[in-house]
This record gives sequence, structure tokens and C-alpha cells, in this order.
Amino acid sequence: MNPLVSIIMGSTSDLPVVRKAADFLNDMEIPFEMIALSAHRTPDEVADMARNAASRGVKVIIAAAGMAAALPGVIASMTTLPVIGVPLDATMGGQDALLSIVQMPPGIPVATVGINGAMNAAGLAVQILALTDNAIAERYADYRSHLSDKIVKANAELASIEYKFKTN
Amino acid sequence: MNPLVSIIMGSTSDLPVVRKAADFLNDMEIPFEMIALSAHRTPDEVADMARNAASRGVKVIIAAAGMAAALPGVIASMTTLPVIGVPLDATMGGQDALLSIVQMPPGIPVATVGINGAMNAAGLAVQILALTDNAIAERYADYRSHLSDKIVKANAELASIEYKFKTN
Amino acid sequence: MNPLVSIIMGSTSDLPVVRKAADFLNDMEIPFEMIALSAHRTPDEVADMARNAASRGVKVIIAAAGMAAALPGVIASMTTLPVIGVPLDATMGGQDALLSIVQMPPGIPVATVGINGAMNAAGLAVQILALTDNAIAERYADYRSHLSDKIVKANAELASIEYKFKTN
Amino acid sequence: MNPLVSIIMGSTSDLPVVRKAADFLNDMEIPFEMIALSAHRTPDEVADMARNAASRGVKVIIAAAGMAAALPGVIASMTTLPVIGVPLDATMGGQDALLSIVQMPPGIPVATVGINGAMNAAGLAVQILALTDNAIAERYADYRSHLSDKIVKANAELASIEYKFKTN
Amino acid sequence: MNPLVSIIMGSTSDLPVVRKAADFLNDMEIPFEMIALSAHRTPDEVADMARNAASRGVKVIIAAAGMAAALPGVIASMTTLPVIGVPLDATMGGQDALLSIVQMPPGIPVATVGINGAMNAAGLAVQILALTDNAIAERYADYRSHLSDKIVKANAELASIEYKFKTN
Amino acid sequence: MNPLVSIIMGSTSDLPVVRKAADFLNDMEIPFEMIALSAHRTPDEVADMARNAASRGVKVIIAAAGMAAALPGVIASMTTLPVIGVPLDATMGGQDALLSIVQMPPGIPVATVGINGAMNAAGLAVQILALTDNAIAERYADYRSHLSDKIVKANAELASIEYKFKTN
Amino acid sequence: MNPLVSIIMGSTSDLPVVRKAADFLNDMEIPFEMIALSAHRTPDEVADMARNAASRGVKVIIAAAGMAAALPGVIASMTTLPVIGVPLDATMGGQDALLSIVQMPPGIPVATVGINGAMNAAGLAVQILALTDNAIAERYADYRSHLSDKIVKANAELASIEYKFKTN
Amino acid sequence: MNPLVSIIMGSTSDLPVVRKAADFLNDMEIPFEMIALSAHRTPDEVADMARNAASRGVKVIIAAAGMAAALPGVIASMTTLPVIGVPLDATMGGQDALLSIVQMPPGIPVATVGINGAMNAAGLAVQILALTDNAIAERYADYRSHLSDKIVKANAELASIEYKFKTN
Repeated sequence: MNPLVSIIMGSTSDLPVVRKAADFLNDMEIPFEMIALSAHRTPDEVADMARNAASRGVKVIIAAAGMAAALPGVIASMTTLPVIGVPLDATMGGQDALLSIVQMPPGIPVATVGINGAMNAAGLAVQILALTDNAIAERYADYRSHLSDKIVKANAELASIEYKFKTN
Repeated sequence: MNPLVSIIMGSTSDLPVVRKAADFLNDMEIPFEMIALSAHRTPDEVADMARNAASRGVKVIIAAAGMAAALPGVIASMTTLPVIGVPLDATMGGQDALLSIVQMPPGIPVATVGINGAMNAAGLAVQILALTDNAIAERYADYRSHLSDKIVKANAELASIEYKFKTN
Repeated sequence: MNPLVSIIMGSTSDLPVVRKAADFLNDMEIPFEMIALSAHRTPDEVADMARNAASRGVKVIIAAAGMAAALPGVIASMTTLPVIGVPLDATMGGQDALLSIVQMPPGIPVATVGINGAMNAAGLAVQILALTDNAIAERYADYRSHLSDKIVKANAELASIEYKFKTN
Repeated sequence: MNPLVSIIMGSTSDLPVVRKAADFLNDMEIPFEMIALSAHRTPDEVADMARNAASRGVKVIIAAAGMAAALPGVIASMTTLPVIGVPLDATMGGQDALLSIVQMPPGIPVATVGINGAMNAAGLAVQILALTDNAIAERYADYRSHLSDKIVKANAELASIEYKFKTN
Repeated sequence: MNPLVSIIMGSTSDLPVVRKAADFLNDMEIPFEMIALSAHRTPDEVADMARNAASRGVKVIIAAAGMAAALPGVIASMTTLPVIGVPLDATMGGQDALLSIVQMPPGIPVATVGINGAMNAAGLAVQILALTDNAIAERYADYRSHLSDKIVKANAELASIEYKFKTN
Repeated sequence: MNPLVSIIMGSTSDLPVVRKAADFLNDMEIPFEMIALSAHRTPDEVADMARNAASRGVKVIIAAAGMAAALPGVIASMTTLPVIGVPLDATMGGQDALLSIVQMPPGIPVATVGINGAMNAAGLAVQILALTDNAIAERYADYRSHLSDKIVKANAELASIEYKFKTN
Repeated sequence: MNPLVSIIMGSTSDLPVVRKAADFLNDMEIPFEMIALSAHRTPDEVADMARNAASRGVKVIIAAAGMAAALPGVIASMTTLPVIGVPLDATMGGQDALLSIVQMPPGIPVATVGINGAMNAAGLAVQILALTDNAIAERYADYRSHLSDKIVKANAELASIEYKFKTN
Repeated sequence: MNPLVSIIMGSTSDLPVVRKAADFLNDMEIPFEMIALSAHRTPDEVADMARNAASRGVKVIIAAAGMAAALPGVIASMTTLPVIGVPLDATMGGQDALLSIVQMPPGIPVATVGINGAMNAAGLAVQILALTDNAIAERYADYRSHLSDKIVKANAELASIEYKFKTN
């Protein structure tokens, strides 16, 4: 089984956040790999991964990084695959990582999601794969149709709150 | 009893903050409803609510949301009722929600209160209703005349603090 | 003719921005007044205005201010009328004014619009007045139904742009 | 010819920035359409576009917006196609738009590029389409291989600058 | 004993921070008073205090406030005494209060200290009083000459840390 | 004639802003001096000035600086006179200078005014001197009583603007 | 043994952060000293240290400070040795310290590292010393070659996580 | 003549800022080279440069970049030479570049100077080289001793300004 999505993170301390991407890809039954790589500490391994990803069958790369988060942009500079960047809140509430990832120069795009938005990074990867895979498209459509379940539950909970002047 | 104010929130995790709006409306004896809706997860239900609110007798809508808080603006785009937006501190200290709510383009206003300012959202709703309802106006005036009570108590507490060179 | 809306600004240098509120109220045929007042330079006059507005028949106050913009909050502390605050970009891109206006303590609300958002301040005032005045409500509904005109024109302009691979 | 990419913008005043996306898609020979739509002024038209895009053959949507930029997120909530958001610098240097677009709640992703980054939005769309279209993939690879041309020219210019202690 | 310094705060929840001002004034043997007042909840009492302070013998006013901190500026607008503003970290890390206090318009100055800087507000008051009171000047000079004591102790502690390559 | 106020600035490029302080002190008939000094380029001269100011009869020091604006704090560390810091907008809209000046550690206060707020720095100096000089106090009270003149003129201008629905 | 690096900090409360610099210098077998000094509380001692450092054989100075962090810049103004500034997160997440340190005026550079980046300050000092000391250069090269060890371990940990659709 | 300092910039549009580094190195008679390289557009050339710099005799690398400025960090990850990063104001007033450069993870330091601070980058390079080259050290000391010349001139200019109450 070849991975369709490659999830790259700088260290396992990022796992509690990044894991949400893995969980969602697994739920969507999409083969993926998880790799620890650092733009600043293992530049050669990053280059190898980025340059060989397409030929290994990878279709989308998710790169999560904090601080001066060069990882997504560096990977994007070495592949023509879509790269999704996840700014992590390691310092400064994640604002340093957000700007380091999203403000790419013209020519080398990174698809940036919100701070600690690993779940949405996986969602974006699924949307891209769903363009040409009906089974994935159906699973994702099914997932999206259940997004309102939490709201329905919330309304049930709100309905149970009593106030003299509450009308619903 | 028809609601005069509709309080909309994205999830029940927002209740500890949003509840202050409900508490105050209840104190002012103003019929209100509480609904969970999400601009991004239940866009159809948001549109239904926004489009039917006026005909159901709702006069003011309070919409609380965090992050990329589109809810108040989306509701405002679908009703001519005044919409009060409450930016919630879900991430980034609420700055993302504040800017997402307050920076509306010309033509579609949202009356924005402070971050987590649900209490003031209710106060604003009461002020609007009080313009044409004397009973509400009196209750609100009475409330406002007691706002200084906390300051009076604070002064009593300050008076009890002893310093050699404190003169009061 | 008594004013229903009072527009307060700190100086006539704010006119190019604040004028949009006057223009819109005039278009909606709503009697209004324009007054120059400063929370910091004319505190007595501000107090007089705020305390007498309701008895003069004013229903909504629009207060525009820049820098450490205390004006809207100070007025709000002295009236139970709804006060709409317009943060002006006098310094710091208007961020100082925005925070000085929107971050009101519980009990004294200010309905804040976007930076330099005088147009939306007037829109909000109209929405409030429209709750109990059918003629205003109709004029405002008519205005809102024409908001898409600019978009229609924009689409015509976009349609005229030619690219080999443009399909519309 | 059906469009593969739909470029949505709020007004033609955004054209000088958004045009770069059209230019690049045209260069890559990818059929696209350009539409003016506003989340706040034409919510029905936005919903129609978002809900019908997939069935019309659109694969990727690019949505550019400024201020409280709800457009990309609102579109994303009504389609399962990948949506690329371009924050425009209309006010506050584009920081309001950036946060309004990138900080989406879990479940509804928007692929965000840098402020005014229309060129990279198109690049991302091309990368996605290139995953399953060899002709596009080749054209894009060719484009990327020429990205260094500007650097080569820059080095020639730097070489021509004379300093006594400059060694190259 | 008449107070020379008046310390104003919005509520006793501010006491843990504001107390440092009282402590220091007491140490410097300067008569002071502590009063709870709110620009937004007790505007009349603020006006009374500000307008009568000079005639009661007060020389310097310290006003501490958080959020949309209008208190120092409002007091400054009603007295010609020097007013020292202390921005409190009630929300947003105190940035809202800092800008609301420091960005005063020309003509009405507020001497602003750092966020939660009550200690320095008292120091500034002492410096002002010391200009014309030798006893205070001597006590303050003595205090300042001991400011390095903490550094001396710190050096002793640093000296006790052992590293193989530490030379001191 | 000995100076009562010493105005320090880093370079004459700051003159257009800092001059407002000189103008106001001159209007108030307060002897002052203007000196160019840099905390980073002329540290010895700064130390000399700061240490000798009190013995030369200076009562208040105004220090204006931009960027990493160490000047006011460094002067404050070497004198017990009140030091008023003026953050200049040399870079970053003056935010770097504001934080570099206002966020002083406990023990060494700097009275900070708004960005480019030289006028208010002089006002603060006058307020301090007025505490013990009746002639200055009277001139300053007179100045303050004329602050509303600009507002009066503004109202005259506003009165002349004609709208069909304008009532004043 | 003379120190080659001088580590300056404002107080021992900074030790948990600053210690990482000492640890790394010790690991690299570089003689260093640790001194507590405050630009604002002990300006004379700072001047003595800065002016005598070079003649005592010190080659690089590391200065860590928080808030209005003048220490690195003040030291830099009194020595021609390279000064490395470490902004400490004492308040405002360290943003005040970062701007106070990095935004130096032309002519007096401070080599700034990230917020709380004491480890990298030491790394920079080692890099500078390694330019002319082969033993240090070898130890540092050896350290750098082991930087990827943590990544290797992280990959082992990631490999042990099981998902049905995880491929590595 | 081998270069001792390598100045890297992304494009010649950065020349007006970066040139100041070249000017100062030339004044200090230090051999240098100027190269255009982009971390995102020419990653291979960046790697070549970074990996070969030391063996070519380069002692210090200055890397200037704007936006998501990965260049200095990427170079630093591939060499043990000291790397000086210059954040350029290409967008967002340079705040994106500042954070992208200064917030490096532990282990890979970048010596960051202020926004557009090319002059200080060169100054830092000279300070490092001066540690082991007496001729450079003397030239730099001479330069530093003349830094106050501008202040002297400024004082002459200030002396010529006439006010009735100006005492110097």
C-alpha cells in the first residue's frame, strides 16, 4: 500500500495536534505516512522526501511546523505536489508560524490552514483526492453531511436550559 | 410567547460566555430564544433562521462566534434586523473573531461588542427594545442606576485597608 | 423637525469619513443632527448632549473618534440610548481607536462598527429605527435590494475581459 | 469549454490583484471563469455558485476577499470542492482578511495563500489539476524550471556593480 | 492629613496590582487616598473627584484601568493636575488598555506607565513631589540607591552555580 | 536664564515632531533647552546630561526617540527627575518605540505619551511645573480653557453643511 | 582561565531560560562568566562591564533582558565586541523585548535571537569563536551532526503508531 | 582576493536596502561578494552556496529576505558559519520577515538585525572579523568614534533655532 498523503512534522511533541490529520485520513480510508523531519535540523532528508514524494505515489503533502516555520515552504520549493502548511502554536500563539508559512513569495504556493488546524489540513487533502476518486468523494460527502450532528445535539442541550423568559 | 431576541451560538461550549446574554435578557423580562447554528457547518439553517426571524417577531439578533467568525455577518446579509456580533475568544485571544466580525463591508452592518462581551450584547438589545417599550425602558434605567453599587462596595472595601499614610 | 439620530465627531477633519453617515441618513429621509464634541476637550458639552439627547427625541447616537477614542463610551455611560461607535483611522491604522471603543466593560455597551465604518453606523441606526417605522423599513429594504447592483455591474465588466482560456 | 477553475472576487476594484490568478491560469491553458460575488451583498448568488460548481465541472474555486472576508469560508461550507482563499489588503494591511479566511473551524477547510497572493492561488489550483492531467503537469513543471531565470538576471545585474572590495 | 496623591481604580479586583502603588507611597511617607471609580459606571463621581482634587490639596492622580480604559483620560480632561495612567491586563494582555490610555489627543496628556505598572506610577508621583519637597527627595534618592541590592544578591546566587568552564 | 525643561532628541530629523514640545513650552513662557543626544551613539554625553540635569536646575526631562528607543529609560536610570518619553514613528508605525519606552521595569519609571505626542509631553511638563508656580498654572489654565475653541469653530462649519434632513 | 563569553542577565529569575546558554557553552568547553546587571538599575556597572570586556579577553557578550529591554543595546553602544541579545518573555509574550532589542538604529548592531532563545545565543557565540579555533569548530561540527538524532528517535516513535491506513 | 563576507539577497529589487551592507563592508576594506539566491526559487543554488562558503574562505554570511523569509534559516541549517539575517519590509511592514527569521528553533541560530537593517548586518560582520584582525578592528573603532559627529552637527542646528524662552 503506497501512501497518498505524507504527513511531515518536526517532532513528536507536535503529535497531539498533528494526530488529528492522521485520524481523519484514516477515517476516510486514505493511505498515509507520518514522518518527522526538520527544515533546519535535517535539510537533506527534507530534500530527499520532497523530491521523491511524487515518484513514490504521494499526491498531497501536509507539513506542520512552529516558530520560524520554514518546513512547508522548503518542501514546496522542491516538489510540484500541493503542499498544505499547518502553523503550530509553539510560541507567540502561533502567529510567527502562521506568517512564516502563509506569506510565500509568488511562484511557490503553500496552502495554509489555521493555527493548529491539522484536522482541516487533512480535510483539504481529502477534497483534493476526492476530485478523482469517487469512493473518497462519497465518504467525504457523508462526513460533511454529518457535520451538523453536533449542532443538533447542542440545540437539544440548549432546549433543556430553563429561563422564565426563554421561549424555546 | 414570541421571542423578541434571538441568541445564536456555534456550540454549547460557548455557553459559559453566551449565557450572560440570556441571564440579562431574562432579568429584563424580555422573551428570547437560544439556538445553536454554525455559518460553516449549517449554512442552510442559518439562512432559514435569518430570513424568517423578522416574520416570527424577532426584533434583534445576537450572534456569538469565534475564530473566522462569519456567523454575525452572514446573518446580517440575510435580514434587515439589527444584528449584534459577539467575538468569542476561541483562539488568538479573540482577535481573529473580533476582526472577522467588526470589519464588515459598507452596506451590511454588524453591531460589534467586545471580546466575550455577551453581557453587553444583551444590554444593546435591551437599549434598542427600550426605545419603544416603556416597561423595558424603566427596568433598564433601574438596572443602570444600580451599576454604581459595585463601586460603592469596592470603596467600602478600600476604606478598610490600613496604611500609615492612607488618608481615607 | 427633531433629529432622530445625533452624529457626533471630534473635529471637522473627520468629515470626509463621517459624512457617509450623514449622506445615508439623508437618503433614508431620517432627520439627523451633526455636532462636533470631544470627550477630552469638551467633557461638559459631551455630558450635556448625552444626558439631554433622549428628551430631545434622539433615538440613536453615532459617535466617531480616533486615537484613545473615549467619546462613544463616555456618551454611552450617560444615556440609555443605543450608542454606535465608529473607530477612526487617525493613528495606528485605527487599531487604537477600535480597541478603545469596542472593549467596553460589562454594563455600558457600545455598538462598534469597522474602522472608518461611518456608512455602516448609519445603516445600523436605520435598522434600529426601521423596527418601529414602516416607511423607513421600506426605504431600507429597497436600499438593501439594490446592494447587488454593483456586483451586477462588476460582472458585466468582468465579462468584457478577454482571455483565451476564459470561459465566461 | 467548461471552466475548471472558478475565480470569485467581491468587486472589480480587486481586479489589479486578482488578475494575476487569471493570467497564470491562462498561461497554463486552464479554462477558468471570473465572477463577481459578495458573501454579504449577494448571499443567494454565492450559494448558487458554490452548490452548482461541481456539477458544472469546476474542480477548484479561488475566492478573493478583503476586510471581514467571509466569502471563501461561506463557499467552502456549501461545496466539497477545494476552496482557495486569497486575503486582500483592503484595510489593516490585509490582516483582518487573513485571519477571517485562515482561521476556519474544524471540518470546513480553506486553503489560504498570502495577502494579495492571487498568483499563488492560481499556482495551487494548477498543482491540484496537475495531479491528474499530464499536459498541465508538464506545463507547470516547465514554468517552475524557469523560476530561477529572474535570479540569474539578478546575478548578472549584481555582477555589474563595482566596489573596490567586491570580489565577484 | 490631606492626601497628596489620589489612587483611582475601577474595582477591588484590581487591588493585587494597584496595591503596589499604595505600598510604595506609604514607604515614601506620602499621604494618599484610594478610591474606586469607573469612567463608565460612575461618570458623575469621576467628574466630582477630578474637578475637586486640586482644591483638596491633591497634587498627582494615579488612575488604573483595563479594557477600553477611558478613566485616566477622562480625569485628565477635568483637571490640570498631572494624571498618571496605569493600563491593567484585564483582557488582551493589556494591549487594549495601553492604547486606550497612551494615545491621547493633543492638549490632554496622560503620563502612561507599563502594563500593570502600578509601582512605577507611584514612583513617578514621588519624583514629581520630590521636585519641591526635600524630605521626599531624600527618601526617594535613598530608595534608588538601593535598587542595585537585588542585583548584588543575584550575582551572589550566580556565583554559587558551578560549571566546569564557568570562570566566575 | 536656566532651563526648567530639557528636550532631548536623537537627531534633527525628529524636529518636525519634537518642535511641538518646544513651541508649547515657549508659549507657556517656560525656559527650556533642546539637545541632540543618542543613547546608542553618544552614551557618555547622555550620562553627563542625565546626571547633571538636576544640579543645573532642570526639573523635567523630555526624551523623544524612535525604533529600539532606549533613550528615555537610560536617562531615567541616571536621574531622579521625572522623565517624559515620546515614542517616535521612525519604523513600524512607532509601535517598537512605544513598547521600548513604556514597558520599563519596576523602579525606573518613564512617563510615556502617545506616538509622536511631543505636544502632550510638553503639556505634562507644564502640569508638573504648574504644581508650584502660580504664573505657569494660570497660563496653563487659560490654555486649557481655550481648548474648546477648535470645537466651536468645527460646529460652525458643520452648521453650514446643508442636507434636506439635517436639523441643525 | 579567562572567560571568552560573558553572559549578562537582569535577575536570577531569568536563570531557567538563560541557563541553556551556560549549559551549551560548558558542553562546548568554552570559558564563560555569568553576571547579573541591569541597564536601568545598575547603569554604572553595565558601563564598566561593557567597556572592560574586550581588555579582559571576552570575545562575545550575550545579554538577556525582558520588557523595555535596553540592556543589549546599551552594552553594544559601549563596546565593539559582538553583542548577542536574547529577548525574554517577561511580559506581552516577549514582543516588547524583541522589538526593544532588534530594532537598533544604524551603527550599533545587536545580533538578536528568538524570544527566550538563550540556547541559540550560545550557538551563535560558538560559531563566532569557531571561526578561529579549530578545537571549538570540531566540537561544534560534532554537535551539529547529532542534531538529527532527535528526529531519528521521533521517527521511531511515529513508526510505532498504528493506524489501519498508515503505510509506514 | 577571496570574499570574507557573502551577501545574499532574493532579488535586485532589494538592492536599495541591501546596498548599505555592501557600502559599509567596502568602507571597512573587507572583501565581499553579492549573490542573488532564493530559498524558494533556487533551493539547490542556496544549498551549494551554504555548503561551500566556509571552504571558499567566507567567514560570515549576510542573508536578506522578505515575506516568509526562509533564506537565512535555510542557509544556517547548511553551514556552521555565523549567518546574519536581515528582515526586509516587502509586505506587512516587515513583521512577517522579522518573525520568519528571528524565531529559529534551538540548534540553528540566525543573528537577526532590525527590519531593513542591512547597515547593522554589515556592522555585525565587521565586529566578528575584527575579533581576529587588528586592521579591521582599528578601522571599525575609528568608525565608531565618529558616530557622534552627526549628533554634534544636530546640536549645532538645534542651537541655531531661536525661541524667546530657549536657553541654549
